Amino acid sequence: MEPDILITDTLLLPDPGRNTLLPTGCVAIRKGTITYAGPMNNYGSQRAKHTINGRGMLTMPGLVNLHGHAPMTLFRGLADDLELTDWLGNHIFPAEANHVNPEMVYWCSTLAAAEMILSGTTTTADGYFFETEVARAFADAGLRAVAAQGIIDFPAPGVPDPKNNIEAAASFINEWQGKNPLIKPALFAHSPYTCSNATLQKAKQLAREYNVQLYIHVAETEHEISIIQESLGRTPIQHLHALGILDTETICVHCVWADHDDMDILAGQGSPVILCPQSNLKLASGMADLPAMLAHEVSAGLGTDGCASNNSLDMFREMDVCAKVQKLHKLDPVAIPAKTILAMATTDGASISGFPGHAGVLLPGQPADIILIDLQQSHLTPLYTPDLLVYAASGADVRTVIIDGRLVLEQGGLLTININKTLDRVRTMALAVQ
Amino acid sequence: MEPDILITDTLLLPDPGRNTLLPTGCVAIRKGTITYAGPMNNYGSQRAKHTINGRGMLTMPGLVNLHGHAPMTLFRGLADDLELTDWLGNHIFPAEANHVNPEMVYWCSTLAAAEMILSGTTTTADGYFFETEVARAFADAGLRAVAAQGIIDFPAPGVPDPKNNIEAAASFINEWQGKNPLIKPALFAHSPYTCSNATLQKAKQLAREYNVQLYIHVAETEHEISIIQESLGRTPIQHLHALGILDTETICVHCVWADHDDMDILAGQGSPVILCPQSNLKLASGMADLPAMLAHEVSAGLGTDGCASNNSLDMFREMDVCAKVQKLHKLDPVAIPAKTILAMATTDGASISGFPGHAGVLLPGQPADIILIDLQQSHLTPLYTPDLLVYAASGADVRTVIIDGRLVLEQGGLLTININKTLDRVRTMALAVQ
Repeated sequence: MEPDILITDTLLLPDPGRNTLLPTGCVAIRKGTITYAGPMNNYGSQRAKHTINGRGMLTMPGLVNLHGHAPMTLFRGLADDLELTDWLGNHIFPAEANHVNPEMVYWCSTLAAAEMILSGTTTTADGYFFETEVARAFADAGLRAVAAQGIIDFPAPGVPDPKNNIEAAASFINEWQGKNPLIKPALFAHSPYTCSNATLQKAKQLAREYNVQLYIHVAETEHEISIIQESLGRTPIQHLHALGILDTETICVHCVWADHDDMDILAGQGSPVILCPQSNLKLASGMADLPAMLAHEVSAGLGTDGCASNNSLDMFREMDVCAKVQKLHKLDPVAIPAKTILAMATTDGASISGFPGHAGVLLPGQPADIILIDLQQSHLTPLYTPDLLVYAASGADVRTVIIDGRLVLEQGGLLTININKTLDRVRTMALAVQ
Repeated sequence: MEPDILITDTLLLPDPGRNTLLPTGCVAIRKGTITYAGPMNNYGSQRAKHTINGRGMLTMPGLVNLHGHAPMTLFRGLADDLELTDWLGNHIFPAEANHVNPEMVYWCSTLAAAEMILSGTTTTADGYFFETEVARAFADAGLRAVAAQGIIDFPAPGVPDPKNNIEAAASFINEWQGKNPLIKPALFAHSPYTCSNATLQKAKQLAREYNVQLYIHVAETEHEISIIQESLGRTPIQHLHALGILDTETICVHCVWADHDDMDILAGQGSPVILCPQSNLKLASGMADLPAMLAHEVSAGLGTDGCASNNSLDMFREMDVCAKVQKLHKLDPVAIPAKTILAMATTDGASISGFPGHAGVLLPGQPADIILIDLQQSHLTPLYTPDLLVYAASGADVRTVIIDGRLVLEQGGLLTININKTLDRVRTMALAVQ
């Protein structure tokens, strides 16, 4: 059967966490699925609907960015170098109250989709309000995404009365469940300090009813730990556990201040953790103890967070910072090797994202989520091991991106997004924000 | 007088540390010097030998990378995730013993020059052996550089008998002093634990005699502190001070473990410090306390270090990591704002580099070291403040580079380096290393 797409003569990294490179590789794709990934053999001369010459390129699974708030591209760099509570209360929440509307969410999410595709992300998990517009933007861009409708006990964009927050989330799930194989609806409860116990439990009940994931910011700052500890006499993670909320479908974001008991709980319940090291550094929230988490067998993925607190959605940058800063804990350069980070951003992330059968590797039967990286560059020369992807590559090195078998970026050009129109729309909106 | 180069209609950031943007700016250059930098007025219609349309671009001073070992591009990623002593003793020193020769130094330094120019660095300070080949490579590339010949009490490339290390350094200085206005010779004493007291004092005496700078790795690891402390009863910085080596022309690199007394010494002697945060994180050496250094009024610049320990020479990446990781010390997001980092990488760095009259700003009379950054990109949209250069830009966003009035990169294309030939030469050498 003739492949739809054939990538020939490429340096192949089929499973980034295993770190093995195949020098003259080939990938065949048909109906959105990888049908072959291995040595060229006679594949090089095979006919295909579309052939990509992979010479001088490294071909690998697309990256998985498991935490973001796509519409916040509008607030990128609006309020830098501030403490989280000040940043959120005095800058971000007011800006959101004034500027978030469905049109803004659609265009700013389209900008985020462009930035992610251009820098090699093929799967993302997002949480915001008017999430249906995020989902629509991602669907139009051809990005694979978990789209989670926000739940918070304050007036929020599109949900002026928090009494309706669960109902709004239910209606979002109803709208998107089963609609598009690349968009998986989910819930995003903001945090244990902005959602009541009743709200958290109702959100989890809804998630169980519809069999969707629940994402939640938890144990992000020392301040959060102290307010929950003072009012409830337990850590935020113990609190979620006591409420019966933690299971394999509850994804705990940040966990900067998770202690060893918390890690035991997370591992015991099978709740994955998403680290956002750049956001945690920039807001001076702290640094999660990844070596300890992995020792406790907590499942861990990586995310950029919204780009108001980062300010980039480039997962290569996130991998690099994560790998480097994690070496600080015990001044141990071996604690978190680069290939562990590569696995977090591909295989582990894909597994946490929960798309059926999506393992984040290049193997027959896998969904074709693939990126090609241009190696003909000074900063990627020489190339001894794939560790260089963590320590030297950047999103700008990505030239071609395929998601679910569809070309969305070719030779650096976006095929699904009108980037100039998108930049213009967002810039016009930004004039009103400043 | 007709300008040699005229940059029109650009977003101008004349002094990055002051953080003020001029929306429709213009820069005129004649005989290597800036003759005008300000609002367009009637400059837009002026005739020039070469006009650069700066529309959609941000024009700013070139970046200053104050610590590197350019030939080590050959060892980029050769030995990742190792402790400094193991990395140096079991991997880097043996690789250097086997593979460093004048030809290797020339081509690998050319690769480094390409990488630096492509990512917006216009001035660098380098320290290695066969430094004359580094200087030649940088001169050919048109890069402004302090080139420092290495001094160490072990057999070194080109200096098999350490007894000749001072003599070899003197002959290097004789060769390059006054030869090329862009190349300033200097000395690089490896460290207080690899150079005897006599060697350090002779090196400083030579530096004073020729009026050149002396660079030295100092207080890089906790291990170094303990061995110097045990054998001499003082910190490495106290040791250098006791030897009479610290003055404004001695540049102390790393200083990760400098304590407050050390900072007082450095400030009192006027010795600048160069931080290399990515290298210090990757080798798990630790994190210098920049807020404390600045509070002690120590002059501080930024460097990438050699790309065997980083593994990139992109100063945008270095700025970003420095800004973010420094917020960890006291979990204070305000401690080191982005504009302080921008100043370190431009004005402060230029001042430390010591090229006469070079202040790292775009002002009439200044040497024309200028970079243009492409703003028509998703990850740089919207642009509220120049902080985005630290938190979202990368070297790949640089399109045009001018050094001393000479165009060395235009629309992303290198004008002074044959990049494909350079990549081929270095790849061939790497085959023998692996």
